This record gives sequence, structure tokens and C-alpha cells, in this order.
Amino acid sequence: MSLNVLHKINEPKDLKTLSIEELNLLSGEIRDVLIKKVSTTGGHFGPNLGMVEATIALHYVFNSPVDKFVYDVSHQSYTHKILTGRKESFINPEKFGTVTGYTEPKESEHDFFTVGHTSTSISLACGLAKGRDVVGGNENIVAIIGDGSLSGGEAYEGLNNAAASGKNIIILVNDNDMSIAENHGGLYKNLALLRETEGKAELNLFKALGFEYHFVKDGNNLESLIETFRKVKDKKHPVVIHMHTVKGKGYEDAEVNKEAFHWVMPFDLETKAPLFTGEYEKSYGDITDEFLLDKARKDKTIVGITAATPEIVSLSGIRRELKDQYVDVGIAEEHAIALASGIAKRGGKPVASFLSTFIQRTYDQLSQDLAINDNPATILVHWGGISDSDVTHSGLFDIPLISNIPNIVYLAPTTKEEHLAMMDWAIGQDKHPVAIRVPNSAVVSTGVEVEPNFDELNKYVTVEEGNEVAIIGLGSFFSLGKRVKDKLKEVGINATLINPRFITGLDEELLNKLEENHKLVITLEDGILDGGFGEKISRFYGNKSMRVLNFGATKEFTDSVPLEVLYERYHLTEELIIEDIQNVLEDLKTLV
Amino acid sequence: MSLNVLHKINEPKDLKTLSIEELNLLSGEIRDVLIKKVSTTGGHFGPNLGMVEATIALHYVFNSPVDKFVYDVSHQSYTHKILTGRKESFINPEKFGTVTGYTEPKESEHDFFTVGHTSTSISLACGLAKGRDVVGGNENIVAIIGDGSLSGGEAYEGLNNAAASGKNIIILVNDNDMSIAENHGGLYKNLALLRETEGKAELNLFKALGFEYHFVKDGNNLESLIETFRKVKDKKHPVVIHMHTVKGKGYEDAEVNKEAFHWVMPFDLETKAPLFTGEYEKSYGDITDEFLLDKARKDKTIVGITAATPEIVSLSGIRRELKDQYVDVGIAEEHAIALASGIAKRGGKPVASFLSTFIQRTYDQLSQDLAINDNPATILVHWGGISDSDVTHSGLFDIPLISNIPNIVYLAPTTKEEHLAMMDWAIGQDKHPVAIRVPNSAVVSTGVEVEPNFDELNKYVTVEEGNEVAIIGLGSFFSLGKRVKDKLKEVGINATLINPRFITGLDEELLNKLEENHKLVITLEDGILDGGFGEKISRFYGNKSMRVLNFGATKEFTDSVPLEVLYERYHLTEELIIEDIQNVLEDLKTLV
Repeated sequence: MSLNVLHKINEPKDLKTLSIEELNLLSGEIRDVLIKKVSTTGGHFGPNLGMVEATIALHYVFNSPVDKFVYDVSHQSYTHKILTGRKESFINPEKFGTVTGYTEPKESEHDFFTVGHTSTSISLACGLAKGRDVVGGNENIVAIIGDGSLSGGEAYEGLNNAAASGKNIIILVNDNDMSIAENHGGLYKNLALLRETEGKAELNLFKALGFEYHFVKDGNNLESLIETFRKVKDKKHPVVIHMHTVKGKGYEDAEVNKEAFHWVMPFDLETKAPLFTGEYEKSYGDITDEFLLDKARKDKTIVGITAATPEIVSLSGIRRELKDQYVDVGIAEEHAIALASGIAKRGGKPVASFLSTFIQRTYDQLSQDLAINDNPATILVHWGGISDSDVTHSGLFDIPLISNIPNIVYLAPTTKEEHLAMMDWAIGQDKHPVAIRVPNSAVVSTGVEVEPNFDELNKYVTVEEGNEVAIIGLGSFFSLGKRVKDKLKEVGINATLINPRFITGLDEELLNKLEENHKLVITLEDGILDGGFGEKISRFYGNKSMRVLNFGATKEFTDSVPLEVLYERYHLTEELIIEDIQNVLEDLKTLV
Repeated sequence: MSLNVLHKINEPKDLKTLSIEELNLLSGEIRDVLIKKVSTTGGHFGPNLGMVEATIALHYVFNSPVDKFVYDVSHQSYTHKILTGRKESFINPEKFGTVTGYTEPKESEHDFFTVGHTSTSISLACGLAKGRDVVGGNENIVAIIGDGSLSGGEAYEGLNNAAASGKNIIILVNDNDMSIAENHGGLYKNLALLRETEGKAELNLFKALGFEYHFVKDGNNLESLIETFRKVKDKKHPVVIHMHTVKGKGYEDAEVNKEAFHWVMPFDLETKAPLFTGEYEKSYGDITDEFLLDKARKDKTIVGITAATPEIVSLSGIRRELKDQYVDVGIAEEHAIALASGIAKRGGKPVASFLSTFIQRTYDQLSQDLAINDNPATILVHWGGISDSDVTHSGLFDIPLISNIPNIVYLAPTTKEEHLAMMDWAIGQDKHPVAIRVPNSAVVSTGVEVEPNFDELNKYVTVEEGNEVAIIGLGSFFSLGKRVKDKLKEVGINATLINPRFITGLDEELLNKLEENHKLVITLEDGILDGGFGEKISRFYGNKSMRVLNFGATKEFTDSVPLEVLYERYHLTEELIIEDIQNVLEDLKTLV
């Protein structure tokens, strides 16, 4: 890999003196670096390959960090990182882990926000622009947003307000004709029309909103990008540049199979085989997918709903086979929940499926459109729990978010059989919205079928009867509870083990009964403690002599911290839990 | 008031045989009824006066409830209620309280959703349409949405998806050129252009999104409405009807002063004087408004941000006087928070102000755009707390919503002086996002200035030192705590009284110290208990001998239930609290 030009670039100003030929060489070098690096480590592949030229042109024409770039989601900011002092993290394998996959102000003065969710860039850029105006600056503010991100409501609120601001703000729409999956929605017809007419069609969403509009036919052509950016630089009013790029540009497989190459696991560039060679075990996601497809085949009123991530929320089967029973709303979680409520109201059976981190985007719709109306939609929540994810994709918060809304029943299955029974019941019942937290762990199977009947709400199950200590293990942490129980036996404590099943309510009868022969109840939940499940147990026992210990995550944002470190920090290992239990029991002895 | 035509209308089918003349008479009669009723009881005035003819025409042409109308916010559904069997509640003063101010499925089969927040109708209608399609129906689904509501992201997500559905859905855009306040945003330039050109302009947002588009020049003219509705009925693809109506139509003052007459308190139709004649006391809202104006006059980097409700969130002063320091984003709470984060990042001092019920609309932005980035924006939350409001405007949920997000400091002032100090500190500091829960009570003033320094986070204040029982009274419930303390003295208990000030964290040192000479801690919070403040205190003491009682609201939706009833139900009266305290103390005695 020859990196003759890149070799000379340590900060954006080093670009300014290059010729077009050199800039083009640089594009090629950066593309080589990206392909090599991302195929080795995994990461966002297609989005970054498409943005190489545009990023070079932005840094060539504008003056970062005085002029400010805000990348939407920022999963396409690798070239930006390479050009702003962080190239070693992409070239040198030993440094591969030293920068994050998103923009990060802690890394560089050229980054302004830690971002990871979509559709936020225009609104954040509006903030920088308004801040500039009241503080008294005159720099350019540029938001860079993909066509997929434009489907989210926040992006539209941003467009609507940016257009009205009447001040400098430049919105670069990177139109590669793809969300993660294919795009859906009226907006995309307009983008297609504009591409076909090279921006000349009368019907123009951006002009209709009041923007000055520029079209760049080949968004991977440096010269036309530079020309356009020069034209709009320092304009004193809002501008949209609509550029057409090729997602995955420069790596043939990624150009052809855009969805599969949006984000990749490490793979071998020669053989194209995945580098991960472990055995693949069926996941809860797979089980869910199969169940939903089978169920939907038999019941034509079932509708699977996704907000642009069908493959990771177990809707791939329905997507492929049952077109009329599948809706991809784009990155529009608010619409997804309201849609589900409406379908349920009209007698259909909606199953709306999300990652934990993205269901955060629709709290008000869960509360108002769905829960107040008490419509029997099924919601699936994937990837909830403590994880080593980056800070913007944490699955810590769905329990406080969902479980404190009245009317919603939030269930936490502990095994494959229980999960299937819960889905079956949720889809069949007609009383309440039911959310299910799909376990974020390896599949646990008992082989014993569970009756799909959860009509009696908030009924916990005592799995193993004991005394002195009761362990309430919620969802995927039930197995941790089981392990703790087994180890406690070794120190002579015969603990009770409980599967609460319901996150959203207390089994007061069972909890009262525990008082007869238990001194301590511990709760285990895979999520943040604040506002979560365990605190409700603590509140229940507040005026009783029962001692309670809540185990779960501390209220903090964590960024790619290894799971073992977090488990240790939060006392979520068998040893530390048992130590905490023994301390309380010791205390109680002293008191007596 | 002659109601000759209305007299004959008990359900929509009674309309079908009327002539245009009779329909016009009916409009006049309904308008008289509305003016008389709303001026007597208060309620949404302008929005309903503007919608009389359109509602009659809808029911004349379509076949409700088979054809289904979904009203956005549904604050304009009074005529709909009158025509669907509920006219007595508008004509007969004795029945005035018997229907709600919004659509309500429990009242009528012609209502499909309990609604109260904006921008949801298109998405809910998409759900009804998709439900129809999978269940096998063929009715018309009509969403009725005002231009103001179109500024919200969910409305856009709905438009984008409705356009793509390719099936029957009719969106009636009621363009009266006003949100609650005046409209802002690029969208409104397009609506204005379409009005000016009578729908003929080439730049057309709705057509750009893929809708068949119809324009109705006079949306208060029955004949042209009927003609247009007949044209689009039973169309098998998505249609937008853009009609221009006059907000407040038929009541001159309301036509002229559209904002003041959006929602009215009871007033005398003859004299136009308000019927409420009690003395007006300065509210926390007024104090906040004055403070912000004064502060912003002196500091040009302060920016007040509202989502279309400036007058009720204490931004009226800045709005009137400091145009460059004021942003009304429309009904776009998500944008408001991202904007605030951006302004803070660029060195400005944003103050974004919301009602508790509406801050629910921006959870993900609070978490991602603001808290993860830890930008020092100030957020004001008004009207948080238990109230007799309708179910969709409850202020119960802001504490669980905001306080379980890391990095945000959520403060609860107990007096005017503390509130001013907290605002002063929040705006001046540069460390964290700070939210302040403006007390939802009569103003309490001590006359003693409070130092604007809350740098030491989570430091509670012991206001009165005692023993045995400690009362932690949060925010507006601090005074309740004080009253409980005083009454406890009468029964020989000298309780400690604590003002926690911080909702978002525990003062562990103080809580530990309480163990020395207290047996019971009680928490008082004006909000839902689940996920709230008190549960964190319960968790803290879970493994200690300290008893804890959490007082607050049960997890339930309540609809216009009188406050006394709720306080009684939740044990939030001095008597009931003291009874509960005494029960615990009795219990403890038995144990010893």
C-alpha cells in the first residue's frame, strides 16, 4: 500500500496546497487504508467508502475547526478522522483501537459532538449556528447527513428550522439511495426524481422548504465537489447541497451488496471469508425471527414493523416472505409506535421490534399514542442490558424508560421456551400493549414448553424454594441468580430463587410471603439501577424489616468498557454478590 | 339561540338528507353553541370555530364510524362531538362537564384515540389504514391536522410513510396560518406560497412527497368542501387536501387575536371581561419570565427556546423584547433540545423551557444530543406534578424521564429565592446540562436570598434538625413536609426536615448520618413513585435497619380527577402521612 500523499497530511491545512491530481491520489490511498482497516477490525464499511472524496473536498475548501462539520450518526467520519490528525489509528494495526467509530470531541478539536443516533446533525448544526450568531462569529456550519437519516423526524424539524433561520448553514445531503436497508417513504421518490433530473425537477422538497439548492451529480468526483463547496462557502443564508454518491465506492462487493456491507465483521480481503471462525450458535434473535415468520404465515393480520433495522430485530423472515405483513418505516421510531397502536386499534396484530438504544427515540409515542390508548400491540426490545458498546448505543435504559409508563406490560423471559410463550401470548391477547425484552445472552433452553398464558399480571414464579435469602433474577440475569444460588449452597445458605417474569409490577403476595422465612432479598437486573426494577422491590420493603440489595448498573455513561470490567465495578459477579450477601447477613447477626 | 337544524341531528346520518341551506344554518347554530359554551367553561376557542364547516362536510360526505376520522391533538373536535351524539354536553349547561376536550373512544364509537399531544394523527391513521388492509376492510381513513402540528417530527414521519403506503389515506391539512403562537419554519413559507397561488405553485411539499394534492381556497365554505371530499372519497392512494380556514371564524376578537383566543378561560360574551374575578397573584411562571428577561438583557449570549408555547413557559418577556435571543422552533421539542446542546457547545447560554408533559417528546435528544455530550444547557420544566389535568397532559412523568439519565443535574427549588438562585447558577455554570423543575404551586418566599452556588452536587440541606423521623420534601412538596413536621410535633415527634434540592443524586453522607438518631425516613415527591426520587432513597437504605416510606403518585393514568381525590388516594395529606408514620413507629416498638 503506497501512501505517498497521505504521508504528508497531518492536519487539514496540509491539504490546501495539493493539486487535484494529488487529491485524487489521496482519495485512492485513503480508500485503500479504509478497506484494509475495516476488513480487519470490522466497522462501518459502505458509508465510509462513499464519503472519501466529499470529506477531502470539505477539508480542502473549508477551514476546520473554525468552520464546523457535524456528521449525522458520524459513522461516515473515518476519512474526517484520517485527515484531522488521527490517521495512525487507521494505518497502524497497533493503534487500531485508539479512536472510536464516531465523532468524539475528546479525540479532536475537529469533532464537536459524540454522536451515534441518526437524524440529529441538522439540529445540532442549527445550535452551533445560533451560538455563533449570539457569540459573534462568522464561520461556516456544515451538517453532513445521509438520505437514510432524513427519514427521522428530528431531521425534518431541523430542516424546517434551518430553512427559517435565514443565516449561514450548509446541509450536505449524501444521497446514496440507501438507508441501512433500502429506503421507504415519499421523500425517496423526490430524491430519485431529483437524481434523474440532475436536480432540475420542479418538485423539490428542499426548495419547497426554502433552501437554496445545489445538485452534485457525482459526489465521488473531487472537482465538482470542490467547485460546489466554493460556491456556497460563506453564504449568509441556508443552503442544501444534494450530492449523489455510491455507497461502498471502490470495493465492488460493497457497491453491489450495499446492505450487507453497511457494517461488516472482520473479513479476509482475498478470500472474502469472515475472520471469525467459531461455531455459530442459534441466538435469541434467530429463534424470534423463526417464530414470527411461522406465526405470521398462519395469521395474516400480524404485521412486523421495523425502523430501518429489520435484520437485527428478527424481522428478516417476514421481510423476505410476507411483503404485505411487513413495514419498514425508515429511521422513524415515533411513527413505528403510533402505527402499531393504530393497527392494533383496527384489529390487526402489530409486532414492532427495536434495539433497546433506539426505542429511546419514541418515549412520548409509547406513552401517549400507545399506553394511554391501551392498544394491544407487541413490542420487542433487543440488545437491552449492560454491554461493552460505545456510549451512544448503550442498552441500559429501556427498563426505566418503558416500565414506568402505566398500562404497558413489560416481560422479561429467562429461557427460550418462556420467550416463545410470551410472544405467543402477547400477540394473541387484546388487553394491553406488551413489550418483551429479548434476552441479551446465549440461548438457555429447558426443553420444557411453557404455557403461553400471562393473563394474571405480575405473578412471579418461585423456581427453587429456600430460606434466609431470596434471589430475584430478572430476565437474562436469572441464570446469574441461579449460579449465585448454587454457590450459596456451598456456604450453607439455601436461597430461594425467583423468576419475576414481569418487569412492570410487584407480586405483593409472594413478596409478603417471603417475610416468613427470609431476611434478605436481592434483585439482579441487566440494566441501570436508577428507575429500574430492583428499586421497586426496595420501596416495597421500605417499611419492613426485610433487607434488600439491588444489583445492576450504576447511573453513568460508559464507552466501550469491557464487560468484565463493568461486572466487577457493579458487583455483578457471583463472588462479589455472595460477599455482599454475607456482609448483610453478618450485620444482621450483630444486631441480634 | 335558535337551534332548529341542530335539534334534528343526533347522529351523522341525520345530516345526509339536509340541503346546503340547512347545512349552512347548522354551521351557524353550531358556531353559536360553541361560542356560548366555550366562553362559559373555557376551552379551545379559535381552533374549533375554524373547523365547523369542515367537520360538517366530513360527516356529510363520509360514513363515520366505518370511515374513520383521526383528529390531531383533537382540540378541534368539538363540532365532531356535537354531530356524533354528544350535543347535549355543549348545549345544556348542566351537562357541560360530561365530555372531555379531546377525542375519547370511551365516549363514542366515532372516536378512535385518546389524543392530546400534537403531530400524531397521520401516523395513527396510517395504523388504522394498515390494520384495514390486513384485516380486509375498504373504508376511508382521514387524518385531520393543523398547520401548527405539521412542524413536529412525528407528523413528517407520518407524511413520509403515508405517501409511500400506496393505499387509501386522506390527510386534511387545516391551514389557518397559526400554531398556538405564530408559525416559524420553512414549511410555512411553502404553505403561504400555496395559499397565494391557490395551490398552483410548482414548489409543493406534499406533491414532492408523492401525494395527490387538492387545494380548498375557502375551508369555511361548505359547498367547496363537500365537492372536494366527494372527489377524494374511496381513492385507492394517498391524498392531501390543503384547506385554508380562518382560526376563530365567526367571533371577531378571535379572528383578530388568534393566539389569545386559541384557548380561553371563561369570559363574558357581552363585556368580554374574564369571569374569574379572584385576585391574581404572581406565579412562579411570572417570576421566571421576569428573571430571564432581565438576565438576557444583560447577557446577549442567552437564548430562550420554546416549542410553540412561549407564554406558558416564561419566555414572553424575551419573546417580546429580544428577538435575536429568542427561538420558537414550532412543535418540535426534539429540535429544541439538540439546538440547545449546539448553542451551549458554541459558547452561548441556551434556556429551553417546556411543560412537563411535552418534555416527554424529546427523551432521546436529552440523552444523546445533550447528556452524553454534557453540554451546559439550562432546561426549565413547568407544570410538573400531580394534577387534575386530562390524561394526555399529565405532569407525573418528568422525574423518572429526566433524572435517570446520567450527567443531567435536575434541581427542585422549594422557594422563590432558591428558584432564582438555581436559574442563575444553571445559566452561569459550564459543566453539565441542568434542568430545573419550576414549582407547580403558589409562590413561597422567605425573603432571604439564596447563594447561586450548587457546584457541590447532590448536597441536601437539613432545614430543621430533629430525630426519630426524617422528612425529605422534594421541590413543591417541601411545604407539605414542613406541615407534616409541625403536626408531628403535636404528637410528640420532633422530626428532621430536609430539602434535597437535587433530584438526580443522593447525599450519602447526610443519609448515613441520619442513621445515628432516626428510625424512619419519609420522602415526598410531586410525581409518580415508579422510577422517581424516593425509590432511590429506599434502595440506599435497603441493606440498613432504617425504615423508609415513599410518598407520591401511583403508576396510573388519571383523567381530570380532582386533586383532593388524588391526594387522598396517594396518602398525600398531612393526616394520612402522619398515620402511616405512626404505624411504622408502632411496628418498630413491637419488634423491640
